[in-house]
Amino acid sequence: MLLYESLADEFAAQISAGHMHPGDRLPSVRHLAQQRQLSVSTVVQALRTLESRGMVEARPQSGYYVRVRHGRVLAVPARQRLEKPVVVGLSQRLLSVLHANEAPGIVPFGSALPSPDLMISQRLSRLYASVARRYPQLLSGTSHAALNEPLLLRAIVHRALEWGCAIAPEEVVVTNACTEAMSLCLRVVTKPGDTVAVEAPTYYVMLQLLESMGLRALEIPTDPQTGVSIEALDLATRERKIAACLLIPNAGNPLGCVMPDAHKQRVADMLASRNVPLIEDDIYGDICFTPARPRPVYAFDRSGNTMLCTSFSKTVSPAFRLGFVAAGKRGAEIALEKTLTSGKSNPLCQRVMAELLDTRGYDAHLRTLRRRLADQVARTRDAVMRHFPGEVRVTEPAGGLVLWVELPQHVDATELHKQAIARGIGFVPGEMFSANGRFKNHMRLACGHPWQSSFDDAIKTLGQMVCAASVTGGV
Amino acid sequence: MLLYESLADEFAAQISAGHMHPGDRLPSVRHLAQQRQLSVSTVVQALRTLESRGMVEARPQSGYYVRVRHGRVLAVPARQRLEKPVVVGLSQRLLSVLHANEAPGIVPFGSALPSPDLMISQRLSRLYASVARRYPQLLSGTSHAALNEPLLLRAIVHRALEWGCAIAPEEVVVTNACTEAMSLCLRVVTKPGDTVAVEAPTYYVMLQLLESMGLRALEIPTDPQTGVSIEALDLATRERKIAACLLIPNAGNPLGCVMPDAHKQRVADMLASRNVPLIEDDIYGDICFTPARPRPVYAFDRSGNTMLCTSFSKTVSPAFRLGFVAAGKRGAEIALEKTLTSGKSNPLCQRVMAELLDTRGYDAHLRTLRRRLADQVARTRDAVMRHFPGEVRVTEPAGGLVLWVELPQHVDATELHKQAIARGIGFVPGEMFSANGRFKNHMRLACGHPWQSSFDDAIKTLGQMVCAASVTGGV
Repeated sequence: MLLYESLADEFAAQISAGHMHPGDRLPSVRHLAQQRQLSVSTVVQALRTLESRGMVEARPQSGYYVRVRHGRVLAVPARQRLEKPVVVGLSQRLLSVLHANEAPGIVPFGSALPSPDLMISQRLSRLYASVARRYPQLLSGTSHAALNEPLLLRAIVHRALEWGCAIAPEEVVVTNACTEAMSLCLRVVTKPGDTVAVEAPTYYVMLQLLESMGLRALEIPTDPQTGVSIEALDLATRERKIAACLLIPNAGNPLGCVMPDAHKQRVADMLASRNVPLIEDDIYGDICFTPARPRPVYAFDRSGNTMLCTSFSKTVSPAFRLGFVAAGKRGAEIALEKTLTSGKSNPLCQRVMAELLDTRGYDAHLRTLRRRLADQVARTRDAVMRHFPGEVRVTEPAGGLVLWVELPQHVDATELHKQAIARGIGFVPGEMFSANGRFKNHMRLACGHPWQSSFDDAIKTLGQMVCAASVTGGV
Repeated sequence: MLLYESLADEFAAQISAGHMHPGDRLPSVRHLAQQRQLSVSTVVQALRTLESRGMVEARPQSGYYVRVRHGRVLAVPARQRLEKPVVVGLSQRLLSVLHANEAPGIVPFGSALPSPDLMISQRLSRLYASVARRYPQLLSGTSHAALNEPLLLRAIVHRALEWGCAIAPEEVVVTNACTEAMSLCLRVVTKPGDTVAVEAPTYYVMLQLLESMGLRALEIPTDPQTGVSIEALDLATRERKIAACLLIPNAGNPLGCVMPDAHKQRVADMLASRNVPLIEDDIYGDICFTPARPRPVYAFDRSGNTMLCTSFSKTVSPAFRLGFVAAGKRGAEIALEKTLTSGKSNPLCQRVMAELLDTRGYDAHLRTLRRRLADQVARTRDAVMRHFPGEVRVTEPAGGLVLWVELPQHVDATELHKQAIARGIGFVPGEMFSANGRFKNHMRLACGHPWQSSFDDAIKTLGQMVCAASVTGGV
């Protein structure tokens, strides 16, 4: 880690822990440089990094101050009541929303994918070409047995150690992105008609997977700052037969919060003791804004009950379609399901990914990516604060690339979406994140693209629509 | 098509149609060259091609003769009785068979994949490198909406015209190989507990797909020369609720026969009129030994009821994991299922495949591949005829790369497989091709690798084992 990053992370941790308060003045640049024996430019870079993360602000002629947070942080889930399991039926509406968001010229608050500008496509392209030249045999492989390229397997096991996860090679299956990883897990531990516990709100693809497999969703209330409610999960797994639990504990989509370690330990223990398999989506783990890369629940589970699923779609390229599952005690079952229903994932892509992960430049890329995403999220959030009506509440994500916005109770975000598309602005309406029809007055804003002034205009337009809908008593 | 191929195909058609009989002498080389105004070497090449296909034989000092076929062609399915639908439960045993077949040094009669020697990996590797250099943006694509790379879509539509299929672009979805194509089709038209009609015997991955989706298999008697029994399919679809029908009409695995056009028309009409969706696997369509590339059932169906699934695994590379479905009237549903459960298939691979299909060399590759596979199948078949006991019957495939062998009634091929693996020889036991536990005295021999003398030894060893098992009254 570079010096300025290390300094920035140190201050960030202090601020996050509440040891420095909003409005507190930071030590002067000169003072810090002397005290830490760093160059002035290093200190300035650290402070600018904190500024881009939205944690401090510069006041002209005065220095840097811990930022006064707007008071409207989304802190409490709208409802705590535990719902009944329901059959999911979202597909068609969801698809039309996704398609509308992708029409040419639409302001890209829809897809939760980092912009190609943030990715390393040139490097990847050179690596691809080079691997294809060096290993033509990877283009004609015929093995049913070996699902994982050995080099990628080694890279995965090695990297996971940095997240506190001691993954055994034999429990890993390389998959076609994270969605296939989760789908394999669900197929191994559930049968049609079973109930699966999910966060509320949760990522719509989770709900779609349940729908396509004939599973019921039991939505567990989820706190925008600490993640899924332990009490509700406790209640649900005691009272009902739950076939699996599907969570995104690190910077989950759409809430963006990181579950505290103590909660992770409790979730791991509780689910293991009740024999409820945990399918953990850690796809945002590498793009958290926390000082240290947060550990997955997997790291707290010694029982083999947790299946860790992730991919490189948010960090390298969504076009790669490469991910993996570390399936704990269910490694052999997952490998069987993968072998017999989908076969080995493209071995050339596996090799490219392995070589990419093995470069020192990859860590630098991750650091830059995190910084830029944090900046984009902070700027989008600021714009919402400035342009949306006062009663609107917004999450303060600890990672990822989306904001979750609660609009006034009677505003219908799905209707709003139609109006927004007509004005050239995309987003995903809240009801897509629930199988129960909840969150109708919520919206998810993706922040995957570098900030530009037209985005401010678009947020302003959205804000005006929300105002109009609030005043008229609904869209 | 080259001149000698055209001549060879013409004679092949005559022989297949019964217009030339076993033992008939072909016109002399000189006569043919004069009559057709071809060079002597072209005529010789045509005759050698027919020889390698096992259709004619050279007799020293005498010329070429239509080959006397061994009389032991597998002609009648063992049982015609229609079974009850059953839940499939094969996975674990199948996996251990596949793994055993892939151990280092095992004679490769197991996997039905063309050897890398038959593929064009060098050309593919150069194309990969070049596409990665020219289109780095394909490595960072972010679209949910566009599932198909336009150039690949065009190539597919264009090629399908040659098979008599008028595919509309909007019904095509590019998939992760043929297995995903079939899986998407099944998910769209069935729900768990439904019954799906399959051929008996059928490819074990079909059965595995049904097992993983909680579907029942209804096995329809299938003739080793004309494919699925129309009468039995008629009966089944009249008497029962069949959610879908899953067939491999062109050089199906394991029987290798091509369903006659008249049967294809009847199947298309019958299933459409009864509203039973047909999922057609055409993965061997491009490697049939028939004079013309056979049409899929899809070509005979004007109703949109047939979903044509295929991939490039048998013709370009199994490592590519790229296929497609032309889903007829269900195109939009399939696209939805693909978008929401798996996402777009790797766009770079799509582009590579599109450019490969666009080269003139690709057709030459297919011709060579077909010829070599026909040769390998013929040589393997000959070896079985020479070394297996007299009551053994073998298919005479019209395409593909596998032989289906019926052993004496009381020989247990699964036991035989264990013995064979111990002697370093792989194959797939017949019972893997049925959910009803049928075909225990059958075996599938794959012919994906260029013939070598050690293969003859291996077939001889297998023959001795079969003899021993026959004599002792079972393995």
